[in-house]
Amino acid sequence: PEVKKIAVISGDGIGPEVVAEAEKVLKRTEELFGYSFETEHALFGGIAIDEKGTPLPEETLSVCKNADAVLLGAVGGPKWDSNPKELRPETGLLGIRKALGLFSNLRPAVVFDCLKDASTLKPEVLEGTDLMVVRELTGGIYFGEKFRRQGEHGEEAVDTCAYNVVEVERIVRQAFEIAQKRSKKLASVDKANVLETSRLWREVVIRVSADYPDVELEHVLVDNCAMQLLRRPASFDVIVTENMFGDILSDEAAMLTGSIGMLASASMGEGAFGLFEPVHGSAPDIAGQNLANPIATVLSLAMMLRLTFGYSDAADAIEAAVSQVLNDGHRTSDIAVDKSKAIGTREMGDLIVAAI
Amino acid sequence: PEVKKIAVISGDGIGPEVVAEAEKVLKRTEELFGYSFETEHALFGGIAIDEKGTPLPEETLSVCKNADAVLLGAVGGPKWDSNPKELRPETGLLGIRKALGLFSNLRPAVVFDCLKDASTLKPEVLEGTDLMVVRELTGGIYFGEKFRRQGEHGEEAVDTCAYNVVEVERIVRQAFEIAQKRSKKLASVDKANVLETSRLWREVVIRVSADYPDVELEHVLVDNCAMQLLRRPASFDVIVTENMFGDILSDEAAMLTGSIGMLASASMGEGAFGLFEPVHGSAPDIAGQNLANPIATVLSLAMMLRLTFGYSDAADAIEAAVSQVLNDGHRTSDIAVDKSKAIGTREMGDLIVAAI
Ligand SMILES: CC(C)[C@H](C(=O)O)[C@@H](O)C(=O)O
Ligand SMILES: CC(C)[C@H](C(=O)O)[C@@H](O)C(=O)O
Repeated sequence: PEVKKIAVISGDGIGPEVVAEAEKVLKRTEELFGYSFETEHALFGGIAIDEKGTPLPEETLSVCKNADAVLLGAVGGPKWDSNPKELRPETGLLGIRKALGLFSNLRPAVVFDCLKDASTLKPEVLEGTDLMVVRELTGGIYFGEKFRRQGEHGEEAVDTCAYNVVEVERIVRQAFEIAQKRSKKLASVDKANVLETSRLWREVVIRVSADYPDVELEHVLVDNCAMQLLRRPASFDVIVTENMFGDILSDEAAMLTGSIGMLASASMGEGAFGLFEPVHGSAPDIAGQNLANPIATVLSLAMMLRLTFGYSDAADAIEAAVSQVLNDGHRTSDIAVDKSKAIGTREMGDLIVAAI
Repeated sequence: PEVKKIAVISGDGIGPEVVAEAEKVLKRTEELFGYSFETEHALFGGIAIDEKGTPLPEETLSVCKNADAVLLGAVGGPKWDSNPKELRPETGLLGIRKALGLFSNLRPAVVFDCLKDASTLKPEVLEGTDLMVVRELTGGIYFGEKFRRQGEHGEEAVDTCAYNVVEVERIVRQAFEIAQKRSKKLASVDKANVLETSRLWREVVIRVSADYPDVELEHVLVDNCAMQLLRRPASFDVIVTENMFGDILSDEAAMLTGSIGMLASASMGEGAFGLFEPVHGSAPDIAGQNLANPIATVLSLAMMLRLTFGYSDAADAIEAAVSQVLNDGHRTSDIAVDKSKAIGTREMGDLIVAAI
């Protein structure tokens, strides 16, 4: 079979450990399903700042561009938090999104059975929650012109939020397509009663919706969405929104599942190219101690196999293996009720590999 | 005693009914505490669109400017939702905030004992939640330049988010002062890792914090705040943030208390001038049926008496009366467990008046 190229970015904190387990899983799918992958590692984030003087070295970018998909562990940590802007891991994150054209961030928020008590929501409210936030990732106020100036009232800071119809249409179409494959319900979130960009957003959504008559569409104002996610999380299916609102709502949605340490994400570009990473952060406090939970990274790999390569058989097998290992009662310490019985990062990886 | 002038805006939907009860309460405080108020009614919102062709008639603005404080019921409804921008109730709301210089929106989010089961959060998580969101209300992306233009990729919409040091400093100082009178904890929410306005915001917060050494300050990124509100609501005391983030987070905070129908709010200008209104909307579906719960409006009046007039005795008495009526088991249908025993808007108002 064709050799698929994967750029692997371990990153900072627990990144290298969780990525190592996902690589073991990748290897196992090669053996079992006859696929063939070539991985190339690259430096990114804090470690790249330390070793190369920039969070996103040119070389890393070309490794990524040369690949069919990118697997990312986690970046950042207190060590770099007070660095100037150009020397901060987040700047690398924004840079890689823009440079690779990753305009669509897919954030499934699902409740893992073994974690349903970890949510702060009542179980009966959470019951059946399984939603997907589709966040625009390369436009809006994140990437608009930013500057300082002297005004009448002293120093002033400005951020610009801009969206054009092409940017809105491509993410909205993608959301409709995803909704078609799920429960055929799409909530488009905006602030059309205040923002011009939201009014454009809503116009495009309404126009595009004509091509997806089977998808039930609702427009939800962002403030109302922040409330409805709490009140009726299970009633949402796909939520599509712009960059800044998506940042806030996808984190809110993830947290309400109680499963944030287990959630995967995909940032997709044109075609099937994508960057896949766990939602959780780099957790420097537990780094290097074989304590991290590799499941979110393994599930991110499964998303890659499905979305970039169309290898649904392998993706299904990985997801089933994760479920089985959890059903068998194995837990890393972050999700263990009885911490004394918790297993390590590597042991969890081995169990998943064995269960595929 | 000096006669205090209150502009009364009943607005739309249930607005007139709930405001009428607050006026009865106001009258009772005059009798009991010897205060003297003069009220003047004015048209605003949907009803002003219908009767005057604009959501915010000049006359209404001068009634407000001529008053010491404004009491507002609720505005809006589906009837005006598809109107052009200038003929929408929200446009009036933004206009009145700007025209009256109401730069600070205070949104207490507390849990009412009788409603703690109404929250979708687990009771043990909610326990002790009593926070106040201080939202900047006349700046940021709400009021920045907005326009459409033709770009390379077709039509483009632009919103501008700007903040100057004066705008940030006055709201931040107010938040610190409020925190000093509460549990001396302030969370400043921004997106300083991405936005220039947030970096300016954080600089000002850090500078101003030197004047309030007794207040414990934490900086929280907006996405993280959306999560932490869910995870540890009781650990927050005062939250201060810019306009757009405040819109989202104050609604999230209100919803998690489960008491959204009972919450009051204040929008303060320079000095002690303020506009006071319930957090809930105009609920056109139950309007005119003596079904609405007037408590949030009565509590908004209590905020007015305390914050604008410094009449703490009367404010305390009103709040105590509300608690007593609830403790005695009286409920309007929105908060009644046994709907058949629910009382009406007017009856609830009468009971509060009698309990003062
Ligand atoms: C680190 C930060 C720049 C980033 C964002 O805001 O997009 C993060 O919060 C995320 O959601 O991936
Ligand atoms: C109606 C709308 C313009 C308004 C806002 O966004 O400020 C509302 O959501 C609020 O919070 O008072």
